[in-house]
Amino acid sequence: MKNYYKLDEWRIVEEGFQPEYHEAAESIFSLGNGKMGQRAMFEEKYSGKSLQGSYVAGVYYPDKTRVGWWKNGYPEYFAKVLNSVNWIGMDIRIDSESMDLFVNRPKQFVRVLDMKSGLLQRSFSYVSSTGKSLDVQVERFISREDDEIACIRYELKANEDMQIDWNTFVDAHVKNKDSNYDELFWSRISEQSGPDFGLVRAQTTKLNFEVCAAFHASLTCIDSAIEQVYTHSDWRADSSCSFKLAKGETAVLIKTVAVVSSLNYAKNELEAAAIRQLNLARQKGYDELKAKHVASWADVWKYADIAIEGDTAAQQGIRFNIFQLNQTYTGRDPRLNIGPKGFTGEKYGGSTYWDTEAYCIPFYLGTSDPAIARQLLVYRYKQLDKAIENAAKLGFTKGAALYPMVTMNGEECHNEWEITFEEIHRNGAIAFAIFQYALYTGDKSYLSEGGAEVLLGISRFWSQRVHWSERKKQFVMHGVTGPNEYENNVNNNWYTNYIAMWCLKYTAEVIGELKADKPDYYSAFAAKTNFQESELADWKQRWENMFYPSDEELGIFLQQEGYLDKEQRMATDLDPAERPINQHWSWDRILRSCFIKQADVLQGLFLFEDHFDKETLRRNFDFYEPRTVHESSLSPCIHVVQAAKLGYEQKAYELYLRTSRLDLDDYNKEVHEGLHITSMAGTWMAVVMGFGGLRIEKDLLSFAPMVPSKWKGFSFRVHYRGANILVRATEQGVSLSLEDKPQLRCKVYGKEVTLHQSQVFTTALQHA
Amino acid sequence: MKNYYKLDEWRIVEEGFQPEYHEAAESIFSLGNGKMGQRAMFEEKYSGKSLQGSYVAGVYYPDKTRVGWWKNGYPEYFAKVLNSVNWIGMDIRIDSESMDLFVNRPKQFVRVLDMKSGLLQRSFSYVSSTGKSLDVQVERFISREDDEIACIRYELKANEDMQIDWNTFVDAHVKNKDSNYDELFWSRISEQSGPDFGLVRAQTTKLNFEVCAAFHASLTCIDSAIEQVYTHSDWRADSSCSFKLAKGETAVLIKTVAVVSSLNYAKNELEAAAIRQLNLARQKGYDELKAKHVASWADVWKYADIAIEGDTAAQQGIRFNIFQLNQTYTGRDPRLNIGPKGFTGEKYGGSTYWDTEAYCIPFYLGTSDPAIARQLLVYRYKQLDKAIENAAKLGFTKGAALYPMVTMNGEECHNEWEITFEEIHRNGAIAFAIFQYALYTGDKSYLSEGGAEVLLGISRFWSQRVHWSERKKQFVMHGVTGPNEYENNVNNNWYTNYIAMWCLKYTAEVIGELKADKPDYYSAFAAKTNFQESELADWKQRWENMFYPSDEELGIFLQQEGYLDKEQRMATDLDPAERPINQHWSWDRILRSCFIKQADVLQGLFLFEDHFDKETLRRNFDFYEPRTVHESSLSPCIHVVQAAKLGYEQKAYELYLRTSRLDLDDYNKEVHEGLHITSMAGTWMAVVMGFGGLRIEKDLLSFAPMVPSKWKGFSFRVHYRGANILVRATEQGVSLSLEDKPQLRCKVYGKEVTLHQSQVFTTALQHA
Repeated sequence: MKNYYKLDEWRIVEEGFQPEYHEAAESIFSLGNGKMGQRAMFEEKYSGKSLQGSYVAGVYYPDKTRVGWWKNGYPEYFAKVLNSVNWIGMDIRIDSESMDLFVNRPKQFVRVLDMKSGLLQRSFSYVSSTGKSLDVQVERFISREDDEIACIRYELKANEDMQIDWNTFVDAHVKNKDSNYDELFWSRISEQSGPDFGLVRAQTTKLNFEVCAAFHASLTCIDSAIEQVYTHSDWRADSSCSFKLAKGETAVLIKTVAVVSSLNYAKNELEAAAIRQLNLARQKGYDELKAKHVASWADVWKYADIAIEGDTAAQQGIRFNIFQLNQTYTGRDPRLNIGPKGFTGEKYGGSTYWDTEAYCIPFYLGTSDPAIARQLLVYRYKQLDKAIENAAKLGFTKGAALYPMVTMNGEECHNEWEITFEEIHRNGAIAFAIFQYALYTGDKSYLSEGGAEVLLGISRFWSQRVHWSERKKQFVMHGVTGPNEYENNVNNNWYTNYIAMWCLKYTAEVIGELKADKPDYYSAFAAKTNFQESELADWKQRWENMFYPSDEELGIFLQQEGYLDKEQRMATDLDPAERPINQHWSWDRILRSCFIKQADVLQGLFLFEDHFDKETLRRNFDFYEPRTVHESSLSPCIHVVQAAKLGYEQKAYELYLRTSRLDLDDYNKEVHEGLHITSMAGTWMAVVMGFGGLRIEKDLLSFAPMVPSKWKGFSFRVHYRGANILVRATEQGVSLSLEDKPQLRCKVYGKEVTLHQSQVFTTALQHA
Repeated sequence: MKNYYKLDEWRIVEEGFQPEYHEAAESIFSLGNGKMGQRAMFEEKYSGKSLQGSYVAGVYYPDKTRVGWWKNGYPEYFAKVLNSVNWIGMDIRIDSESMDLFVNRPKQFVRVLDMKSGLLQRSFSYVSSTGKSLDVQVERFISREDDEIACIRYELKANEDMQIDWNTFVDAHVKNKDSNYDELFWSRISEQSGPDFGLVRAQTTKLNFEVCAAFHASLTCIDSAIEQVYTHSDWRADSSCSFKLAKGETAVLIKTVAVVSSLNYAKNELEAAAIRQLNLARQKGYDELKAKHVASWADVWKYADIAIEGDTAAQQGIRFNIFQLNQTYTGRDPRLNIGPKGFTGEKYGGSTYWDTEAYCIPFYLGTSDPAIARQLLVYRYKQLDKAIENAAKLGFTKGAALYPMVTMNGEECHNEWEITFEEIHRNGAIAFAIFQYALYTGDKSYLSEGGAEVLLGISRFWSQRVHWSERKKQFVMHGVTGPNEYENNVNNNWYTNYIAMWCLKYTAEVIGELKADKPDYYSAFAAKTNFQESELADWKQRWENMFYPSDEELGIFLQQEGYLDKEQRMATDLDPAERPINQHWSWDRILRSCFIKQADVLQGLFLFEDHFDKETLRRNFDFYEPRTVHESSLSPCIHVVQAAKLGYEQKAYELYLRTSRLDLDDYNKEVHEGLHITSMAGTWMAVVMGFGGLRIEKDLLSFAPMVPSKWKGFSFRVHYRGANILVRATEQGVSLSLEDKPQLRCKVYGKEVTLHQSQVFTTALQHA
């Protein structure tokens, strides 16, 4: 699908309608506001292939686990992202025939996602089967400001006389594509129709979440309103009107929808809340709602935008990623998290993966108020009890916590033993995010507001998860899956061993500081968690005697013990017809090959770059990257950052292209299932940390920009401890402008400088 | 359930009815004749818990695979053992109330499985809710001789006057308990009722197997026949009669059933065939059918029996195992194999596991005509094409064959990657069975009638499955699961490496012999398989340079690389409350522990005992057995054989008890799901190879009996190259009697002797 969408700096543009790409486009043009989201299905009837998707954040379905062979410790359910009330629906009959773009293909079809303003627009000419022609313009948004409100403006212009029957509805009888046992996940509660609204309310058949959607439709034809008749029936509420539209006349329907859920209202108040929210929105009116929505997006872009000069494809790609991330998560609700597909599809279920900590938190820290990233930390703290229960199920004791691989409410959902029980490095990422938040913001308050408890649970887990090898006379960690999921059940994965020991050290340090600085908190903490000082000694024994596989001859860390026993091949040796190998090779063959799905040793060198010298990074990068097939969307970005640091400009740029337009160009041929939301944060890292060289070195923000030769330049803002720094790099030089703070010391190309709000700092561009 | 059944040398006896054990008893009292089988559900209505099970050999259902996360290479379906037409059914109304032993518990209930004659008998007194009392006697058999015929004799004796309405039926509307998507696996074809028979015919909804069951019921009351009225309705056919039974009178119903399937008849002849078989059986009559059935069992026992003196529990146990094995497989049909649950339950599906080659073939070789074991080899030859397809799916080329882990028709059914793709040692067992058959029978004809092709496919697989390690400068094999399924995805499992290289060597030897001895066959073979002499050189390179993990210090082979890095604990260290660990520990914990499910290194030393000296066996046994939890039913028997050889009498006897009465005493609390049929062959090995010391050493049968101190003695017959040798060992001495051959050289306690048909050879019992 490369080049399917027109290149444009701020907009995604589809010109001409191609049904075979419609499901993919539904994903690409998705809208969301952190509280609800919507795939870009057409409002009107569409009989072609479409993946229905209207999502309400936090409303999920615990679908009974499907498993080939049960293993002790597997979860009972997999939390499914839940397709909820269809609130966009309408049926427009032209001389009694439903408009259907699959039956009568539109002409001059243009679909535009305006990322600057968060608006989805569509225009086309349509000729019915009976030959009646009309022009259509549609605009839709889900308000960022009024976050339970969505609006559609649907305009018809007749090119000849016609009879229009326009039915507008909300419908709660929706199915999930992703259902283990093909069940309906919803049950009816009620429907209403009033003089000026229709409403449906439904409940999930498990967990009893309730969602209620109320709508109002107003139709204006040549300045006069056409009366709507509201009715309701099982599962749905409708409004209808019929009128004659004469040649040249225009009819405009405004559909205003309020979607509320039992997450935020008492169930018995849900219908009233929906009607109240709807009425408030109607008072504001479409134009005001839209203006506030657009203004809210302007606030986002002010800090989050990255401008790329001289490369429209790259510019569009990065903005698309930033846009989608901000559609998915706003940090307003600590019960929510960032699903790998956000509000764009059902696949992968769950909402929370280690992606959040490893990829998304740096993005939100860098582009927005730290409170947003902090909510993501709080989310994990609220689920600490469940993580302790989860570890206990696996046989761990004394408050050891293992966070789940996939979760909605803190309970594990994933059921492949090699992932669920073994891909435990996720625990490390969660601890690292706590460290990173404190480092980035300078705010250590979270440590005594939950952070230390999380760290303790995680460290207790690692402490029990390693064991003493009598043969090695060292501690070892067996039976893990590292970030590279193309290896399972390996012993002594370097990354996992390293981050585990780092967790022990960091937790000991945090506890030590709390004891010294906040003795009252420390006492309460120790009492609550039954923490014993002797635990620190146990941890120290482990981190001082841990086994780390490495190879002297090559001067590299080993992904796991025995990795060099594998047949060594390079990704470039692969027949392109065999790629991606995960679609062409049996699992057996993948596991036995040396090919790496995503950064593993290099993930460790990414997180702990400052623990190692540049030549160590280089040796490992030179060894591992050529063996890496980058078949995880989380892979290329890490390598971009490292390639940039090592001065491998071409490699950095090549990998950057894979990440920034992954979905727009549908590299993996799976966009129809939804977007890769969490990996989009990696793209941001690729630019800001890779090409911008952003690091924090001993509390100093540090930059070392390089400009890929295909670009004229680029600029980004980064939020850091109350300041915003606008960085612009071109071949002509690098400039840094400090905002929101009088002055800030930082490093540029390794040299300490002081930025002043009053003056732009400039320096020459250096080449690595 | 220990001691639930009464100890008896030839019979399994249940005295008193306990509904909580009924499903377990249904398994224990199962009947089968190799072509059909039947759990011991009651004929009459029973409203308590019951696992319905009427099975027709070879009729299965390819149930759509259920899997958590799909991996490339997984099969589309799992072949389910199919519950088929219920042919035992009847409904006996006493003064209008159905007799139901769950509602009105019987008195003097006795259920007997007479293993000598293959008859299932039941007697009890019953009092209806209205207080009517009667005595009941039931006898059932599935004819070994007329193998599409089953009979039930059901006798009622009234203790007061009563009205009886007796409905007898066949019913095709049956469900599987084991169904992935809770579907009905059958569809109706037709029903018939004639003047003297009822019939149903149904078809599986996939694969379209058809089964047809016809029955006749004759009821005699005080010597006069009561007329039956035959009717039919959807799915079923019935016969009914009503009569008055006066106090003291007896009514006897004989139900004769013919069950035929589309495996053996054209579909359009199926109904006629069922009626024909039924009529033939009726001509013979119950008594003649029964006499022939009993005679057929006598033939089995003549060669297969093991007599144990002075230990009734052990005697009953071993006969139960021999009985069930002979109920399951007769060798009459090369399309059939030996399911792990035989005809006693649905669990595990499929029909063919490596159990067949590793455990069952030695049993059939030792106890019956070699033609029976040979059928099991032919079965694999017929599926060679599928094994080649299976390997190709995984990326292997050039005619490499990987036999499936679980199969019905040669296609893989199992879908856990760590088993399906990795537990590849099954290929070794299949090759070993070919070797063993030739060794045991002296008949090498099978090698040129399919055997060599199978060996070639298997060796081509191994040759590709290993790879050269540049680091080790040896060939290695990565990513396997050995027989010990408590380790997954390990590198260099000693057992797998060893048997793989043995396969290469043996195949090379066989091909060399065929080239020398049967040049015509060799040419045809090489042409058909595209065999190149250069392959032999590749193989040799591998077997001469293979890596075998071992530990110098301990003088043992290592189960896999890194095994000694594990925390070393003994099974006796485990809290009994945690056992079996597979029911109490998470999979994660099991995998990381050193505990061994079943013989792994020791399985290799079992198969290749003659490659190693006794002290090597001892060191490995002493190391591994204490780490073995024996949580596979296939485990204890191997250890019995080795413990006996090493003179560990107590260990041998202790493990023997676990194996011989595994199901009778329900050690694993799962007998209600069916019996452990294939492991029963291991019990036979435990006695004959363990206590009898049977081996074949350079074409000589060899014995070294020992008598466990709890026994007075034991005797068994073994079939060997046309001769039968009756071996009896007691504290007083060992005797060997040769039958069916004038003389035979063999070894007793390592000394060569010549047996003569005319005289019994005796020698003193030696202690190890």
